Amino acid sequence: MAKVGVPAETRSGERRVALVPEVVPRLLDAGLEVYVQSGAGRHAYASDEDYRAAGAKIVDGDVLADSDIVLTVQPLEPAAARRLRPGATVIGFLAPSLELDTIRALRDREATALALELVPRISRAQAMDALSSQALVAGYRAALVAAERLPKFFPLFMTAAGTVPPAKVLVLGAGVAGLQAIATARRLGAVVEAYDVRAAAAEEVRSLGARFIELELETQDGAGGYAKEQSAEFLRRQRELIGQHVAASDAVITTAAVPGRPAPLLVTTEMVERMRPGSVVVDLAAESGGNCELSRPGEEVVHRDVLIWGGRNVPSQLPVHASQLYAKNVANLLLHIIRDGEIRFDFDDEIVTGCCVTHAGEVRQESIRQLVEGR
Amino acid sequence: MAKVGVPAETRSGERRVALVPEVVPRLLDAGLEVYVQSGAGRHAYASDEDYRAAGAKIVDGDVLADSDIVLTVQPLEPAAARRLRPGATVIGFLAPSLELDTIRALRDREATALALELVPRISRAQAMDALSSQALVAGYRAALVAAERLPKFFPLFMTAAGTVPPAKVLVLGAGVAGLQAIATARRLGAVVEAYDVRAAAAEEVRSLGARFIELELETQDGAGGYAKEQSAEFLRRQRELIGQHVAASDAVITTAAVPGRPAPLLVTTEMVERMRPGSVVVDLAAESGGNCELSRPGEEVVHRDVLIWGGRNVPSQLPVHASQLYAKNVANLLLHIIRDGEIRFDFDDEIVTGCCVTHAGEVRQESIRQLVEGR
Repeated sequence: MAKVGVPAETRSGERRVALVPEVVPRLLDAGLEVYVQSGAGRHAYASDEDYRAAGAKIVDGDVLADSDIVLTVQPLEPAAARRLRPGATVIGFLAPSLELDTIRALRDREATALALELVPRISRAQAMDALSSQALVAGYRAALVAAERLPKFFPLFMTAAGTVPPAKVLVLGAGVAGLQAIATARRLGAVVEAYDVRAAAAEEVRSLGARFIELELETQDGAGGYAKEQSAEFLRRQRELIGQHVAASDAVITTAAVPGRPAPLLVTTEMVERMRPGSVVVDLAAESGGNCELSRPGEEVVHRDVLIWGGRNVPSQLPVHASQLYAKNVANLLLHIIRDGEIRFDFDDEIVTGCCVTHAGEVRQESIRQLVEGR
Repeated sequence: MAKVGVPAETRSGERRVALVPEVVPRLLDAGLEVYVQSGAGRHAYASDEDYRAAGAKIVDGDVLADSDIVLTVQPLEPAAARRLRPGATVIGFLAPSLELDTIRALRDREATALALELVPRISRAQAMDALSSQALVAGYRAALVAAERLPKFFPLFMTAAGTVPPAKVLVLGAGVAGLQAIATARRLGAVVEAYDVRAAAAEEVRSLGARFIELELETQDGAGGYAKEQSAEFLRRQRELIGQHVAASDAVITTAAVPGRPAPLLVTTEMVERMRPGSVVVDLAAESGGNCELSRPGEEVVHRDVLIWGGRNVPSQLPVHASQLYAKNVANLLLHIIRDGEIRFDFDDEIVTGCCVTHAGEVRQESIRQLVEGR
């Protein structure tokens, strides 16, 4: 019987947990044993008692050394990775192009590391797509934060003393997070317009009751549903055209991120300065450099009476449901590789080969191996 | 031509302004002159230039001494009231049972003070009802704050990884603020139930898609659409029955206030301790003693993993639209007493007699006169 271990997250600000009590029974049913470090669910409001009631065992202190399979949200710290049982399996976000020391440690430990951000975006892997589930959380939060910070109503109000018009919200980037920001702002009654370099996003934007902004620039659909990287000239013209929409908006929510690359600069300081006093910019891409020139991750900056809210680990700000969705994604990937209570890797399976970063002492993704080996 | 003056608000935390640029032309059209103290609209994002463009004159420093009519949000400080031109008219909130020094100063200055909170709740005065317009703002904010602080989604989500059920929101008190909290929580997709001692509220609650809680207690409809004061025994039984609903809720929003009296205690510490960790209580009545035993005005208190948010001047937290609605209420009352650019009080008019606190050196409301004269 393989042992699954869930350590407490150690990275600063991380409130999620990789497994929630509700999901424990699914692992038990598959013939696994589940060990949870005491307090691992605390910031997501899951108590040791909740885990115990669901059938998990609570461990005081380290669970890493005794686990065959370790579930995490954030990448293990390198020192933690070195404590793994040799040949263990780790499933979680791995930030593989950034956390090179962790990947070296995993490789040296002969661990099999499955990175959730590398799960292919194919339909049979949808239920394992943690980037999407966490982007859903971030997009919802972004709209709420914008509404909560704006000194105006989002909805239209018709009162005895007169009518208040609805807020104008602009969403830049219409991936999962952007679409959820649109949907939430629409729920709250705002008038929403949205822009995405991928023309394919237009229909989804419109289906949510928002207006899709056509910038009369060539379309830029990329692989795997993400936008491809843009040329400098394209970005300059895009910014010029976007500027007018930014100035007319009460709230701007930016969600344009290209995985593993710096976020494109969409909202310049000059654009912010043309916004009405009291307006709000919510930048979900602040951690990867920011879609807004003024955003700082985890901070609220006021520039000439405009508030710029920079996101930092936004899914952690809704830790109960972010953890719940994440845990389901992790469990789906884990159960995908379990047969009769034991791990069976199938390296002919697109899902496994897509997300497996280290295995049997090797880094299996070429681009990551080059980074790890410093070439 | 009567001169209308708008001073900058001086009370701590007040961000509203009694007149916004959009409303200035209505006063000019009625034959009034409008003087606005420089910076008066700053915290509501209305600049001196905005007022000037609307036809007002900007005054550096005090506008009180030269104004025939002074518009305020908060009651003037006593020292400011003593600077009024003798016989001036003041329109604003007056907190007449609390701000006795101000009322004495207004009386001694032979000012006519019209208190917006005393405008009768009759249909032809609806457009002057600032208590309602500001309660609308507070109720909207309360739901947003609850959604923003809760570690869960408000809406139901059906994702590839599974379904997240909607949050359960309980609203206590279904006046204007409570109904708006219900409407906003419903917009965001929460499942909402609500309770009010007035059985008449049931239909309004249901029309917003929320469930009305029947406690099987005798109904307590009072005068003017407000609940009447309750007996100790009634309150004890009410709390007992409410406790179960509180425990089952993710977010509780309390809005039960009886004007001029301490707020009823509805949510005890023991009830909070039965809520799930991560739950949220938003108490709009925190300033008048609190509907929740643990709330502190203007503070966020965490008690055993439940967040209790105590409101303090909540309408000021949405200063643009709170000011806009307030300004319209004020202008409607002002224009009601203006004929040909001059003030004409009609003391046969229910609106004027209802809200006039001081006039010609006298306190005209019996209950307030008793307080002012210390009897």
